[in-house]
Amino acid sequence: MALRTPEQFRNSLKDGRVVYYKGRRVEDVTAHPVLKIGVDSSAVDYELAENPEFRGLAVLQTPEGEPYSRFFLAPRSPEDLLKRRKLCETGSRICFGFPPFAKEGGSDAVNALAVIAAHCDAASGTAYAQRVEAFRRHLMREDLSISITMTDVKGDRSLRPSEQADPDLYVRKVRRAEGGIIVRGAKAHITTAPYTNEFCVLPTRAMSEADKDYAVAFAIPANTPGIRIIARSGPWEEGTVDYPVSNSASMVEGLVVFDDVFIPDDRVFLDGEWKFAGPLAAMFSNYHRVTAAAYKYPFAELLVGAAQLAAEANGIERVAHVRDKIAWLVMYAESILAISEASCYKAVQDPLTGMVYPDPVMGNASKFFFADNYHQAVKAVQDIAGGIVATVPSEHDWRNPETRADVEKYMAGSRKVSAEERFKIIHLVKDLVASEMGGFWEVTSLHAEGSLAAERLGTYAHADLPRYRAAARRAAGLPEKQKEPAASEAHAQK
Amino acid sequence: MALRTPEQFRNSLKDGRVVYYKGRRVEDVTAHPVLKIGVDSSAVDYELAENPEFRGLAVLQTPEGEPYSRFFLAPRSPEDLLKRRKLCETGSRICFGFPPFAKEGGSDAVNALAVIAAHCDAASGTAYAQRVEAFRRHLMREDLSISITMTDVKGDRSLRPSEQADPDLYVRKVRRAEGGIIVRGAKAHITTAPYTNEFCVLPTRAMSEADKDYAVAFAIPANTPGIRIIARSGPWEEGTVDYPVSNSASMVEGLVVFDDVFIPDDRVFLDGEWKFAGPLAAMFSNYHRVTAAAYKYPFAELLVGAAQLAAEANGIERVAHVRDKIAWLVMYAESILAISEASCYKAVQDPLTGMVYPDPVMGNASKFFFADNYHQAVKAVQDIAGGIVATVPSEHDWRNPETRADVEKYMAGSRKVSAEERFKIIHLVKDLVASEMGGFWEVTSLHAEGSLAAERLGTYAHADLPRYRAAARRAAGLPEKQKEPAASEAHAQK
Amino acid sequence: MALRTPEQFRNSLKDGRVVYYKGRRVEDVTAHPVLKIGVDSSAVDYELAENPEFRGLAVLQTPEGEPYSRFFLAPRSPEDLLKRRKLCETGSRICFGFPPFAKEGGSDAVNALAVIAAHCDAASGTAYAQRVEAFRRHLMREDLSISITMTDVKGDRSLRPSEQADPDLYVRKVRRAEGGIIVRGAKAHITTAPYTNEFCVLPTRAMSEADKDYAVAFAIPANTPGIRIIARSGPWEEGTVDYPVSNSASMVEGLVVFDDVFIPDDRVFLDGEWKFAGPLAAMFSNYHRVTAAAYKYPFAELLVGAAQLAAEANGIERVAHVRDKIAWLVMYAESILAISEASCYKAVQDPLTGMVYPDPVMGNASKFFFADNYHQAVKAVQDIAGGIVATVPSEHDWRNPETRADVEKYMAGSRKVSAEERFKIIHLVKDLVASEMGGFWEVTSLHAEGSLAAERLGTYAHADLPRYRAAARRAAGLPEKQKEPAASEAHAQK
Amino acid sequence: MALRTPEQFRNSLKDGRVVYYKGRRVEDVTAHPVLKIGVDSSAVDYELAENPEFRGLAVLQTPEGEPYSRFFLAPRSPEDLLKRRKLCETGSRICFGFPPFAKEGGSDAVNALAVIAAHCDAASGTAYAQRVEAFRRHLMREDLSISITMTDVKGDRSLRPSEQADPDLYVRKVRRAEGGIIVRGAKAHITTAPYTNEFCVLPTRAMSEADKDYAVAFAIPANTPGIRIIARSGPWEEGTVDYPVSNSASMVEGLVVFDDVFIPDDRVFLDGEWKFAGPLAAMFSNYHRVTAAAYKYPFAELLVGAAQLAAEANGIERVAHVRDKIAWLVMYAESILAISEASCYKAVQDPLTGMVYPDPVMGNASKFFFADNYHQAVKAVQDIAGGIVATVPSEHDWRNPETRADVEKYMAGSRKVSAEERFKIIHLVKDLVASEMGGFWEVTSLHAEGSLAAERLGTYAHADLPRYRAAARRAAGLPEKQKEPAASEAHAQK
Repeated sequence: MALRTPEQFRNSLKDGRVVYYKGRRVEDVTAHPVLKIGVDSSAVDYELAENPEFRGLAVLQTPEGEPYSRFFLAPRSPEDLLKRRKLCETGSRICFGFPPFAKEGGSDAVNALAVIAAHCDAASGTAYAQRVEAFRRHLMREDLSISITMTDVKGDRSLRPSEQADPDLYVRKVRRAEGGIIVRGAKAHITTAPYTNEFCVLPTRAMSEADKDYAVAFAIPANTPGIRIIARSGPWEEGTVDYPVSNSASMVEGLVVFDDVFIPDDRVFLDGEWKFAGPLAAMFSNYHRVTAAAYKYPFAELLVGAAQLAAEANGIERVAHVRDKIAWLVMYAESILAISEASCYKAVQDPLTGMVYPDPVMGNASKFFFADNYHQAVKAVQDIAGGIVATVPSEHDWRNPETRADVEKYMAGSRKVSAEERFKIIHLVKDLVASEMGGFWEVTSLHAEGSLAAERLGTYAHADLPRYRAAARRAAGLPEKQKEPAASEAHAQK
Repeated sequence: MALRTPEQFRNSLKDGRVVYYKGRRVEDVTAHPVLKIGVDSSAVDYELAENPEFRGLAVLQTPEGEPYSRFFLAPRSPEDLLKRRKLCETGSRICFGFPPFAKEGGSDAVNALAVIAAHCDAASGTAYAQRVEAFRRHLMREDLSISITMTDVKGDRSLRPSEQADPDLYVRKVRRAEGGIIVRGAKAHITTAPYTNEFCVLPTRAMSEADKDYAVAFAIPANTPGIRIIARSGPWEEGTVDYPVSNSASMVEGLVVFDDVFIPDDRVFLDGEWKFAGPLAAMFSNYHRVTAAAYKYPFAELLVGAAQLAAEANGIERVAHVRDKIAWLVMYAESILAISEASCYKAVQDPLTGMVYPDPVMGNASKFFFADNYHQAVKAVQDIAGGIVATVPSEHDWRNPETRADVEKYMAGSRKVSAEERFKIIHLVKDLVASEMGGFWEVTSLHAEGSLAAERLGTYAHADLPRYRAAARRAAGLPEKQKEPAASEAHAQK
Repeated sequence: MALRTPEQFRNSLKDGRVVYYKGRRVEDVTAHPVLKIGVDSSAVDYELAENPEFRGLAVLQTPEGEPYSRFFLAPRSPEDLLKRRKLCETGSRICFGFPPFAKEGGSDAVNALAVIAAHCDAASGTAYAQRVEAFRRHLMREDLSISITMTDVKGDRSLRPSEQADPDLYVRKVRRAEGGIIVRGAKAHITTAPYTNEFCVLPTRAMSEADKDYAVAFAIPANTPGIRIIARSGPWEEGTVDYPVSNSASMVEGLVVFDDVFIPDDRVFLDGEWKFAGPLAAMFSNYHRVTAAAYKYPFAELLVGAAQLAAEANGIERVAHVRDKIAWLVMYAESILAISEASCYKAVQDPLTGMVYPDPVMGNASKFFFADNYHQAVKAVQDIAGGIVATVPSEHDWRNPETRADVEKYMAGSRKVSAEERFKIIHLVKDLVASEMGGFWEVTSLHAEGSLAAERLGTYAHADLPRYRAAARRAAGLPEKQKEPAASEAHAQK
Repeated sequence: MALRTPEQFRNSLKDGRVVYYKGRRVEDVTAHPVLKIGVDSSAVDYELAENPEFRGLAVLQTPEGEPYSRFFLAPRSPEDLLKRRKLCETGSRICFGFPPFAKEGGSDAVNALAVIAAHCDAASGTAYAQRVEAFRRHLMREDLSISITMTDVKGDRSLRPSEQADPDLYVRKVRRAEGGIIVRGAKAHITTAPYTNEFCVLPTRAMSEADKDYAVAFAIPANTPGIRIIARSGPWEEGTVDYPVSNSASMVEGLVVFDDVFIPDDRVFLDGEWKFAGPLAAMFSNYHRVTAAAYKYPFAELLVGAAQLAAEANGIERVAHVRDKIAWLVMYAESILAISEASCYKAVQDPLTGMVYPDPVMGNASKFFFADNYHQAVKAVQDIAGGIVATVPSEHDWRNPETRADVEKYMAGSRKVSAEERFKIIHLVKDLVASEMGGFWEVTSLHAEGSLAAERLGTYAHADLPRYRAAARRAAGLPEKQKEPAASEAHAQK
C-alpha cells in the first residue's frame, strides 16, 4: 500500500483504453493536447498528497501506519465531512474551479454504496457490503482514480428504462456469465472518463420491478474490453492569454459505452435488487451535492476576483452599482461555503453502518443556491467587465508587431493597471463567462450533480414538514396533530 | 441579584413613562389592548428563564452562583455566539416570528459598546470601558429589559447631522450639565420603546468632526423626565381567528423623543469622540445582523408551514409547481439558519478585549439573504394559498348563525381538512402575508437591522478582496502582487 | 333608453338585496361606511359619461341616436379595443388604481358570451346568440352595472366539479323548472358583488361530460330571491390621512351564494353544452386579461409617483440606486401599457361573428408581466420610502396637540418638502404597499383575472409553436416539416 | 442611382482596406473563412431588395422614380418607424438573429445627425444639416453600407476624455488641415468594421467645454489612409453541424484605429460644438435601442423554437415546468415585439425637422426588457435541453464510422425524433447558448446598443415624472403643484 505519484498516475493511463476525441482514436491520453489538460488537473489530487502544505489534509494513515487518501475514508463524524469538503475545495482552488476529480466523485459513490449495501444486505440477504469494503481497500491500497459513472443516456425522458424503444438506453444486465454479469448501455457526461482508472457505475434513478435488470451497480477498470469512451470536445487553440484558465485546467467528460462488458462478481454491488436503486441514487446525491458546492466555492471566489480586477482595470471600482455587484458576488461565494459547511455540521448518521452523510436538506440547498444564482453571478461579472469582453483582440494581435502598438495603446484603462494587465484580465473574464468554457459552466451548474428540479425534489423528500406544519398549526390556533413520522423516517419505510 | 419573573417585568413598566398611542396618553402599557400584546411578547424572555425546557439555554451563573440572563454574557467563543443565536431563535419561535426583544437588541448594543469603548479608551484616554462594564452588571443584577435605540429621524438623508435645517434631527448633546450631559433629538422605529426598562442609545452612523456633538452614546431609563414615546399604530380589532398571529404576539415600535434629557456621566459611553461613532455603529451591526437572522428563521419556518397547510387544505399539495415552491421555501428557511450559524462558527476575536463577534461578511450575508428573498417567499405563499386570502369572510361571518352555514359549506376544501381548519389556515396566511402585519414584515425585512444597501456596504467593507484578487491574478497569469493588507486591517487603520 | 346618473345608479341598489358585512345584514349598501366606498368607485363609470372631458370616450350612440355606454359595444376593430382599454384605464386613474368595475368585467363576459354563443349555436342547434344579444340591448337600454361572476369556490382543487364531496362546490343546475332552471352553488371573490345590478355567471373552467350540469352560464339581478352576498371585510377606521387611497376608493368582493335560484330561460346562455364551457372561459380570459392590464397601468403610475415623492421627501432623489429603481418602475408601468395595447393592435377576428378580441398571447403576457413583477415593484417602493412606512405615527398623533409638535418636528425630511407633506406621502406609501390594502393588491395581482399559472397555460395554448419550431429547424439545418396547423387553428378544431 | 447587388457590395470591399484577424493582415475580407460569414450576412441587406417577397418592404422610390433602400428614408411618421423596425426584424430573421447591419446602425446614426444638425445649426450658425442631407443622398445613390462607429475605447472610465493619461483614448480632432480636419483615436466594438463601406463616427457621450476637441462627428470610407481595423476573433472550426448558426451567419466587430486620418469638410458633421455631443449621442440611442430590440425578436423566436425542439427530442414537452418555461420564453419574445412597436406607435416628432423618432421611454424599455431578462431566457433553454448540451459528441464523432454507431444509438431521445435530428438540435442549443457565440450574445445583450445602466438613465431622463408625481399627490391628498414642465421640455431647454 502506497500513495502514487502524479507520474505513476499518468503512466497508469497508458493501458490500452479505447478513447476517441473528435472522431479520432487517442493512443495516449496523457499526450493529447486537450485531454492532457484534464489529466494534469486530475493529477492535482496526487500532487496534494506530496505537498507539505496540504498533506495533513489529504493523507490519512491506516492503523498499520500506511498512508492513504482521505477520499477513501468512510466518514464517521461531521469533522470527517468537513475535512473532506475542505479537501475538495483545495483541489478545486488549484485548478481554477475545476475539481481534480481523480477521486472526489468516485469516492462519493463508494460511500453511498457502503451505506446502501448494508441496508440491502439486511433486507435481501445479499452480501454486497463486504464487496464494497474490499473494493474500498483496493482503492486505498492502489491509490486509484475512480469516476462516478451514473447518468444514463436516458432516451425518451418520459419513459422508464424498460419502456424505451431501445432497451439499452439505460445500462442494464444483459445476462449472467460465469463468475459475473454482462452489462450493456452507455453513461453520459462522465467526468474524467477518458483518464480515470476505474468507473464506479450506479443506477441513475429509482427503479420499478419491471426495471429490475437496470438495477445494477458495479466498478470496473477503464481499459476493460468492450468499454469505449467518446470524449466531449470543442474548439481549441493553443495559448494561455486568450484562454488562461481553460488551457490550464479542465475536466473532460465522456460518453462511456458498455458493449457487453463482463463484470466479475466481486465488483458487482447491486444486481436486480430494484428497491435499492432509488435509495442508492439518493444516498449518492447526499454526498455529491456537497462535493459540488465545495468545488464551486473557489470558482465563485475567482468570479469575485475577476470582477474586482476588471472594475479596477476599467477605473470603475468606486461606482455604486459596481460595488453593489461585487458585494453581491462576495455574499454569493461565501453563502455557498456557509450552506455546504452546514450540511457537514448537521451530518446524519446511518444507524446500520455508523457512517455519516451530509444533511440532505442543507446539501441540496447548497447546490441549489450556487446553481440557481449562477447566471445572475455571470451577468454581474459581464456587466462590470464591459463589452470589450466580447470584442477584445486576440493574443496574436498582441504578439504581432504590426498590431501590437495599436492594441497596447487602446487597451489602456486605469492608470494603475498596465494595458497588458488589462488585456489579460479581460481575457480571463471572457474565458470564465463568455467562452465555450463559460457555456460549459452555465450548463453544468444547472445539470451536473443534479438539476435544479432534482434539488427541489431532494429537499422536499427530506424536509421536516411535520415541524413546519406544527409551527403553522399552532399559529393558526389549530390543535396539535398526532405527531406524524418525520419525513426521513417515512421515506425509509417505503 | 436575581432573575425577574414575567410579572415583575410587567409591574416595572408602571413607572410613569410618557407613552402615546393613536394620539392618546397611555397610563398603563400593560393594560392597553394593543401594547399589551407587545408586553406579553417581551415577557417571553422572562418566561424562558423559568421554563425547565429552556432554562439551560437562557440562564447562566456568575462565578458566585448568581443566575443571570445569557443575553448579558460578553461572548468569548463561537459557542457563546451559537447559544445566543439559539436563544434568539427560541424566543422568536414562541412568539410566531416576533423576537421578544426584551434584551436581544439591547444586549447587542452593550456588546458593541464593550468592544469599542476599549478601543476608544486606548486611543483617547477615556474610561468608558469600565462604565459599560458597570452598566452590564447593573443589567445582569436587575435583569432589566433594554432596547437598542439607534436610528435617528435623519431629516434630509443627503445631509450630515450638522448640516440639517433643524440641528435636532439627529440626537445630540445640547450641553454639559452638572454630573452629566443634556441630550435632545428623537430616535425612530425603536422596537419595544413603549415597554422597555432602559434605552441604550447609539449613534446611527459615522460622524465627521463637525458632527462631534452627535457622537453620543448612553443608556437611560424609559421613565426619565423629558422622554416621550409615540407608539406606532394601526387598525386593530379583537379576535384571533381573523388575526391569529398579530393579535397574539407583536413588537411595537415607537418614536422616542429626548426633550433635553439629563444623562448622568456614568451612563455616558461616548461623548464627542467622533472617530468612534462609525466603528460603534458597525460593531453593533456585526452583532445585530445575526440576531435578525436568528429571529427570522422561525418566521420562515412558519411561512413554510402555512404554505404547506394551505396546499393541503386546497388539495394541491401534489401539484408540481406547489411542491417546487414548498421546496424553495424550505431551502430559504434553512439557508437563513446555515448562514447565520456560519457567522458564529467563524467568529472574529477582538484583540483588545478578547470578546468575539460574528463574522461580518457571513452576518451581513445572512441578513441580506433573508431580506432580499423575502418578497419572493411571500409571493410563493400567496400563490399557493389562493385568491381567497384576499376575500375570505371574517370570523364575524363564521359566528353569525345567519351566515355560518354558507361560510362553512363553501369554505370546504380538501376532504381531509375541515372547513373550519381551512378557514383558520386562510386567515393565518392572510395575517402573515396580506395584512397590515404582512406589510410591516415586508418593510422591516428591507429596513430593520440594516437595509439591503447597508448589508452590501458592510459586506464590501469586510470582504477579503486581496484573497479574491489573488485568485484571479493567478488565473489570469499575472504576477502575484505584493500582499496588500487584508480589508479588515486596512479598515482598522483608518 | 338613457344613460343613468350616478344617483340613479346608487338608488337602484336599494332593492332588497341580501348583503352581509362582518356578520351583519346591510340594509342599504350605499349608506354603509365601507361598502359606500366601493359604491362611489363604481359610480365613477356613470360620472365619466357626464364629464365633458371623457364623454367622447365613454359614450356611443345607437344608429337611432340613443346614447349608451361604450362598454356595451361589441368590438369589431382594433380601434374599438383600444378605446375600450383606454376607458378602463381612465376610470381606474380616477379611482387610484381601482377599476370602477360597474361594467368593465361584466361586459367582458357579455362579449365572450356573444362569441361563444354563436359557435355553440352553430354546433349544437341552440339559440343562445339572440338571448345574449337581447341581454346586451337590455344592459344598453337600462345602463345597468354588471359583475362578472365566475370563480367557483372549488373545494378540493385536485378534483373535477362532479367529483367533489359536496356537489355544490361549483355552481350547477339543480333541475329544470317551468320557464327556466334552478341553480345552486357559490361564486367567490366576486368584485362589486354587494353593489352590482346584475350578475353575469360563467363557468370557471373546461368541463367534461360528467360535469355537464356545471356547464351553465346565465345573468340574473342581484336582488333575486335565493341570492346571498357575504362581503369581504377587513379592519377599518375613518380617516383619509392614514389611509388616503383605501378610504377614498375601493372595490369590494363578495361570496355570492345561489341557494336554488330560479333563472328564466331568456337569461340562460349555456345549459349543459359542456364542450363550450372551456372555450367560454378562455374567451372571457382573452378579453379580461387586457381589462386587468388596463386598470393596473394607473396603479403602476401611482407607484412610480409615490416612490418619487418619497425619494424627494427623504432627500435621496439623486442617489444612484434610487434613480435606478425609479427608472425600473417607469419601465414597469409603461411596458404594461405597451403590451396591453399590443394585444389590441393585434386583435383577432372571430370568423363567425366578426367580433374581435385581444390577441391572446399579448393579452396573457400583459397580465403576466404586471403580476409577475408586482412584488419587485412593491419592494422597490418600500426600499425607497424607508422603514418609517412601518412605524409612522397616525393622524391621531398629528391632530392631538400634545403630540403634534413632536410629530411635526421629527417627521421633517428634505427642506423642500414640509413635514406635513412628508407625513402624508409616507402614509400614501403605507396604504399602497404596506397595509391590508397592500396585501390585497399583492394577492389579487397573483390571482385576480387569472393566476400566473393560468397565464402561462393561456400563452402556451395560443403560442404559434409551429413558427418558432420552423425558425429553429432552419437554424439547426433540419428540413422544413410539413406545415403543421397553427396552434390557434388546432385549438379551434378540438 | 441604383440599388447594388450583393455581388457589387462584396466587390466594393476589395478596396485596399487594412484589416487584421488574429494578428494577420487580411487581403480580401470576402474570401476569409471567418470574415466571409459576416460579409455574407451583411449582403442579406442587399438580397432583401432583390427578393420579391421583401422588396416592397426594403425598397422605396424617390419622387423621380429611383429606387433606394428604406434604411435611408428620414422617418416622418409612426408608419415609417414601424416599417423600418419590420425591415430590421426581417433581415435578422434570415441571419438567425444577427442583424445584417449593412445599413441598420449606420442609418440610425444618419437620422440622429439629421435631427441634431438642424438644432446645432439653429443654435450655432453652423451648416451641418445640408452636409448630412448631402451625405444621406450619397448613401442612397450609391447604396452604400455604413457602420455606426461610436464607442470610444474610453481608457479610465472614471475620467472625462480630456482627463485621460493618453489624450487619444477618445477620438478627437488633432488639428485642422486644408479643407478638412485630422482625427486620431480608436473606436471599439464596431460592428461590421472589417466589411463596411463607410464609418459614421459619433461622439460616445456628453462633453464639457474642456472636451471640445472630442466633440466630433464625421463619415469616412473604410479604406481611407490611416484607418486600421483589428477584427474580433475566436476559436473557429469548419462545420455547420457543431456550430450551425455561428458558421452560417455572424456579425464581426472590430477595433477601428484612426491614425491621423484626414476628414474632408463636407464629411464633418460636428466639430467642437460640445453642447451637442450629448444630444447627438442621446438621439442616436433613441433610434438605435429600437433597432436592437427589432433584431433581437427573431433571436428570441429562435430560443423559443430551440427550447421546444429540445423538449420534444427529450420527450419532456408535456412536463409542467417545461411548458411553463416555454410559455415564459414565448412571453419574453412577444413582449420584446410589443414594447418596441409601442416605441414606434408613440413616435415623437422633432419640431424643427419634422422627423420622428421612437418614444425614448418605450425604446429604452424594449432594449432593457430583452437585455435584463436575457440570462433568464438562456437559463430556461439550457435547463430544458439538458446536460448533454455541455458534453455532446462532435460532428467528427458522428462522421467517423468507428464512433458513428455508438453516437447514433445513444443520442436517441423520443421515438418521434431521429437520433440525427436530436443530435443537430442539441448542437443548435449549444451554439446558441453554450458556446463562444453564446457568450458573445450574453455580453452584447448587456452592453451593445447601450448598457442596462444607460437604459435606466435614458428612461429616467425622459420619464414624465410630473405626471406620475401628480397622480401620487392627488392620491396623498396634497394640493396640485404648479405644473412643472414635462421632463422632455426641461431636457430640451438645457
